[in-house]
Amino acid sequence: MKRRAFIWLLGAAAAWPLSARAQMATSDSLLPSWNDGAAKQAIFDFVRATIDRASASYVLPEDRIAVFDQDGTLWVEHPMYTQVVYCLERVPAVAGKEPKLRNVEPFKTVLSGNREAMAKLSMRGLEKILAATLTGMSVEEFKTEAKKWLETAKHPRWNRSYTELAYQPMLEVLRYLRDNAYKTYIVTGGGQDFVRVYAGKVYGIPPEQVVGTAGGTKYGYGKDGKPFLTKEPKLILNDNNAGKPEGIHLMIGRRPYAAFGNSTGDRQMLEWTAAGAGERLKMLVLHDDAAREYAYGPAQGLPDTKIGVFTPALYEEAKKDGWTVISMKNDWKRIFAFE
Amino acid sequence: MKRRAFIWLLGAAAAWPLSARAQMATSDSLLPSWNDGAAKQAIFDFVRATIDRASASYVLPEDRIAVFDQDGTLWVEHPMYTQVVYCLERVPAVAGKEPKLRNVEPFKTVLSGNREAMAKLSMRGLEKILAATLTGMSVEEFKTEAKKWLETAKHPRWNRSYTELAYQPMLEVLRYLRDNAYKTYIVTGGGQDFVRVYAGKVYGIPPEQVVGTAGGTKYGYGKDGKPFLTKEPKLILNDNNAGKPEGIHLMIGRRPYAAFGNSTGDRQMLEWTAAGAGERLKMLVLHDDAAREYAYGPAQGLPDTKIGVFTPALYEEAKKDGWTVISMKNDWKRIFAFE
Repeated sequence: MKRRAFIWLLGAAAAWPLSARAQMATSDSLLPSWNDGAAKQAIFDFVRATIDRASASYVLPEDRIAVFDQDGTLWVEHPMYTQVVYCLERVPAVAGKEPKLRNVEPFKTVLSGNREAMAKLSMRGLEKILAATLTGMSVEEFKTEAKKWLETAKHPRWNRSYTELAYQPMLEVLRYLRDNAYKTYIVTGGGQDFVRVYAGKVYGIPPEQVVGTAGGTKYGYGKDGKPFLTKEPKLILNDNNAGKPEGIHLMIGRRPYAAFGNSTGDRQMLEWTAAGAGERLKMLVLHDDAAREYAYGPAQGLPDTKIGVFTPALYEEAKKDGWTVISMKNDWKRIFAFE
Repeated sequence: MKRRAFIWLLGAAAAWPLSARAQMATSDSLLPSWNDGAAKQAIFDFVRATIDRASASYVLPEDRIAVFDQDGTLWVEHPMYTQVVYCLERVPAVAGKEPKLRNVEPFKTVLSGNREAMAKLSMRGLEKILAATLTGMSVEEFKTEAKKWLETAKHPRWNRSYTELAYQPMLEVLRYLRDNAYKTYIVTGGGQDFVRVYAGKVYGIPPEQVVGTAGGTKYGYGKDGKPFLTKEPKLILNDNNAGKPEGIHLMIGRRPYAAFGNSTGDRQMLEWTAAGAGERLKMLVLHDDAAREYAYGPAQGLPDTKIGVFTPALYEEAKKDGWTVISMKNDWKRIFAFE
């Protein structure tokens, strides 16, 4: 995807080989997968402050916007972002259609299945894989392919569909906010078109409420005269870091009242949310539970795995500015619905 | 705004100096400003076909998307697009802040107030005016400025606020569709940020349901450490012609069931809508009422005014493909709420 390609996905793929305070919450039935503690309480306090007409922080229902990063915030992002796995696993099909690719790098290496060799692929090689698997087809073809893959692909650790690896406590937060008239958005560094394929089924979020890294499309006509849109290798929005508030402005056009993330790529989104007047909820998921999920930081001495990086500096900013850090280990009673 | 700038606005500004079959509708109370006829009936038929669970064309409530062009479809676009008027009228304020502009073209000509000279401004000159008045400020500053202008600016013909010049029959359609669970979107060649300022008040449409020509923003921090977004002279989406279905895919992510336009810039949006399965409503407003509004085409022998062009070819495509042409003269009982 040319020079300005999905840097986020690339950096991610390159990293593949690396492997409470107790307060009484008012209701166990609302967020049943959450342990009582500061994080759960922060969510309750925020909702109460913004939906109570008598509150100084009351927010009109039509203004209630909440944004959620996806990878590492709503579902598992280790050992590799699901979309990158998709791109790599699509290579055989792409090479099947264009046999000349079989003996051309980086496709040759990916087709070999040799993970060690794949781990050494250059950025330029990975760019070619992303371009070949995410662009060049119609938007409908892409949707069909991604949907089909998601129905059969399994996560290597749990041997379950990727779509089963959404965090149950976060699904409860999405529902709780929506029950209180919040419009819930995904704001992801992942591909907008990819996430839209399953966001409805997995998160109850319609396509228009998925903001993500987006490429351009090109309008054209088929032989039958019917119009179609082709996915182009042209980056429109790199929805990471500063690109998140920029993407929120482009796609939503107003500042969120609540923002959830888990990595440095979410920092600016939380800052942008925090800078609004009145009550704003800012939360970061810390992956500190190697037993039930994964443990990575490097904040709090957790391993630095290069995927979903939560730096000590981000941890400091969170503490200093009153953002709430969610400990998966301590704040979540269970991680997945299937547990 | 560099080379790829708002071509639509530019062409528009350059053109400034140029100047039923009767069927019984089932209910007069639903669309009271519409005369009985094929156009009104087409709207009723479409809604009935898509909301009736027994219908073969039934559409789930969560899939009901309707898109509307703005200029010339929802409100008056003659003698000049409101946003272009805004840009020209903002020049004194911009020159007040940057006095050196006062003796520099094209600002000097605009400040002179000489309309004949303004009409002769080059494309490059107009680009400079758009860049100076639409970019370089924070998104909040822009919103405040545009809002203030809209509160006092008057249309030269009716001496009323531009926001009063929304078409009453179309406001009724917006409401009627929303009452039937349709999510209504504006898909405009106009500036997304500009239209968002008043779309809530005028059309009942929230910012996130305004898709328009959009520039990039840049995230930064003020002296107080607070983040802000600056509007940049970088075009992200030229939401005209093929840019409309492309913009719909980017911002909405699914195909509309109903599309309303009035000019060749809406052609692809209607084609894209029409190409979906099941019942789809495709409508074009024809400005054939010089007495109550304006008359322009050049379809049907109406004058070619270069703004909101409705060509004979578009008229042919509409007739051939079963799109409905709305005659303002014959189909609309009244044009404005204030009548």
